[in-house]
Amino acid sequence: MVAKDKNIGIGLMGLGVIGSGVAKVLLGKAEALARQAGRPLILKKVLECDLAKHGLLGIERQLFTVDFKDIVSNREIDIVIELIGGGHPAFEYTKEAILAGKCVVTANKEVMAKHGYELLNLAQEHKVDLRFEASVGGGIPLIAPFQEDLVANDISAIYGIVNGTTNYILTRMGLEGLDFLVALKQAQELGYAERDPTNDIEGLDAAYKIAILASLAFRTEVGPEAVYREGISRLEARDFRYARELGYAIKLLAIAKKSNGAIEVRVHPVFIPEDFLLAKVNGVYNAIQVEGDLVGKVIFYGQGAGPSPTSSAVIADVIAIAQRISYGISSLPKPSLGTGKTIKPISEIETRYYFRMTVADRPGVLAQISKILGDHLISISSVIQKESDPATQTAEIVIMTHPAKEKAVQEALKEMERLPVIKKINNLVRVEV
Amino acid sequence: MVAKDKNIGIGLMGLGVIGSGVAKVLLGKAEALARQAGRPLILKKVLECDLAKHGLLGIERQLFTVDFKDIVSNREIDIVIELIGGGHPAFEYTKEAILAGKCVVTANKEVMAKHGYELLNLAQEHKVDLRFEASVGGGIPLIAPFQEDLVANDISAIYGIVNGTTNYILTRMGLEGLDFLVALKQAQELGYAERDPTNDIEGLDAAYKIAILASLAFRTEVGPEAVYREGISRLEARDFRYARELGYAIKLLAIAKKSNGAIEVRVHPVFIPEDFLLAKVNGVYNAIQVEGDLVGKVIFYGQGAGPSPTSSAVIADVIAIAQRISYGISSLPKPSLGTGKTIKPISEIETRYYFRMTVADRPGVLAQISKILGDHLISISSVIQKESDPATQTAEIVIMTHPAKEKAVQEALKEMERLPVIKKINNLVRVEV
Repeated sequence: MVAKDKNIGIGLMGLGVIGSGVAKVLLGKAEALARQAGRPLILKKVLECDLAKHGLLGIERQLFTVDFKDIVSNREIDIVIELIGGGHPAFEYTKEAILAGKCVVTANKEVMAKHGYELLNLAQEHKVDLRFEASVGGGIPLIAPFQEDLVANDISAIYGIVNGTTNYILTRMGLEGLDFLVALKQAQELGYAERDPTNDIEGLDAAYKIAILASLAFRTEVGPEAVYREGISRLEARDFRYARELGYAIKLLAIAKKSNGAIEVRVHPVFIPEDFLLAKVNGVYNAIQVEGDLVGKVIFYGQGAGPSPTSSAVIADVIAIAQRISYGISSLPKPSLGTGKTIKPISEIETRYYFRMTVADRPGVLAQISKILGDHLISISSVIQKESDPATQTAEIVIMTHPAKEKAVQEALKEMERLPVIKKINNLVRVEV
Repeated sequence: MVAKDKNIGIGLMGLGVIGSGVAKVLLGKAEALARQAGRPLILKKVLECDLAKHGLLGIERQLFTVDFKDIVSNREIDIVIELIGGGHPAFEYTKEAILAGKCVVTANKEVMAKHGYELLNLAQEHKVDLRFEASVGGGIPLIAPFQEDLVANDISAIYGIVNGTTNYILTRMGLEGLDFLVALKQAQELGYAERDPTNDIEGLDAAYKIAILASLAFRTEVGPEAVYREGISRLEARDFRYARELGYAIKLLAIAKKSNGAIEVRVHPVFIPEDFLLAKVNGVYNAIQVEGDLVGKVIFYGQGAGPSPTSSAVIADVIAIAQRISYGISSLPKPSLGTGKTIKPISEIETRYYFRMTVADRPGVLAQISKILGDHLISISSVIQKESDPATQTAEIVIMTHPAKEKAVQEALKEMERLPVIKKINNLVRVEV
């Protein structure tokens, strides 16, 4: 891995919103980056299949290509930046680039979550770097801390607000009492949510990210399919009112933690005490709390998405590689990930629960509910029963439990659903303290 | 720099609270650390002048020495960990270690603030590493982010709560209305403040830390003597009451920011809006907000002191060096720091101000004050005048200003002090938004 000339050649795959942002920084800060990198970083090729984008940003037209082979087989290119996004063909292109001896910098959470283990091993084998700081938390340093700054720690837990779209929606619902669909629509109008928001609101994006962080923190392979996942679409404005009344905020948390020799990895809405810093992370901001045996609790906060913050991380990765190439220093082998850590199924977890249900407004209902909960060894920590609705002759009951087993809670819920006095179980949200 | 055997030899200087914590981790986590480092990390010598400590932690007595030459001239030692603290002889020992070809890991903020520039250049010259992650923010990754993760950014500002002792005292004063001396006494009883707390409460500790961060962020040499500094001892419980009434918290902030081609570097109490995350950082925790052109606002939060968090950072530095040695990779030259950035004198800064004064309780006082402020082009944003005290025939006035020049404010204060109706200027606190 020695540069073919006095420059570091860059191949950029993808000139979408993020790709354009990165290209803009590479071109606009060329001099400062060269000082940092030890040599100029020169854009040699741009892969972009949308011909309308060719020639954008003042990039010479002859640098554009629609064939990724023009990048991986280009001897002038040392570092490939993959910003195509999505699973395919980004994965294949990344793999081909590594096989061709290129270092790769990627912001692709899906590829890294699904194939990170394979790609990192492949990179090691071919003595090239694969860096992916931008894949989680935008410009917030997260990958490097796990790989370097926190390596002396035994990490016990990660609690992350890692999806800005859902955090924006939940913030609006919480602070302004908006309904989910109204908040979603506003997020879309502001460009914070995509037209098809499924990946964000159903927690898939967060699942990719926590899979990556859990793999690094626990030094084991955690694929996205191992992540239990619930989205935010079932939350209603009234859940936020009850949460506030009880002293909580509602956040979509990505959680990875050690638990009796196994690990839990899950993404779902969570009640967190409102005086916790994570509860105060509002809008599109991300924050990731990491707990280690030495360092205690550390939190990393910042913008988790957008072209500028993502460029910050992508370019830092590029510079780290470029410095190595400039000074003829070989790539540092990374301690390999283990496998075989057991991931707990969601049914085995134990936490506190909030549930909200609509019940018939008549005496003895609470007694029936308490009996079922008691039968399943679920103990109640608080109950709110609000004014009843005379029109429907129903009332709403909110119950917070002490720590209980998920399995017992699910069984109790099934039994309660069969009670004639229970009209509807409106919501169930886990509580993390 | 190749290890003399299959181990990485460690020389530890200082076995105080922090040194003992680091030694405990080196010994207790030996296996896990060896996996990370590529080779076992073996404690070869411990410099400790207090003979009573020899033999502590199960370290063999023959490893102890009272002569630092036994460490710097020891051919089996690759990495020296300096945890003596204070300016001397820590600086000389560090320098000697570098001159002897040892890599050095230090937690010493005073040495790095005063001599970091010289020592880093010396290390580069001798092709050894000098790492100092633990010198600021305990276990919170801060040095590495500036040196690596945020290098693509033009950093515009740093606002840091970097001293846990003062943050603990201010938190107790703010939340419980304690007086300064009472809160200080409690901090001392809990071991959060030293018997002589001057370095902390007068902001010297924070000044060292912001000098280090400013040097890294702005790539220029900033010594601690260039940092304007005010401590917290003048704050009274009533300042916190007024702050709350006005929607602010009071924190001791270490600030470094770009300002019209120059830089400002200062440590003093600050009013910050209470809905800012920094305002919610309580107790002994630290938090550092960094603003960059690409990344926007990022915040790093965690425990800024104590043996465990400090060990987390020290050991991470040791492992980074050990990996390099294990794999025969040479040290990466760091882009050198420039000099010559102008540091603004405090008189030149412009910010908002809070002042609180005791005045004669008679008509026209506010008019006289407003006139002086107006003469100095200082415009008032809000005024609080509370019930007067009939016994002394005085009243208390609190004024918040719009942005004004420090010089004008100081001059206005002098004029106001000469007004017969003003009994006392109780406090002046800057406001950062």
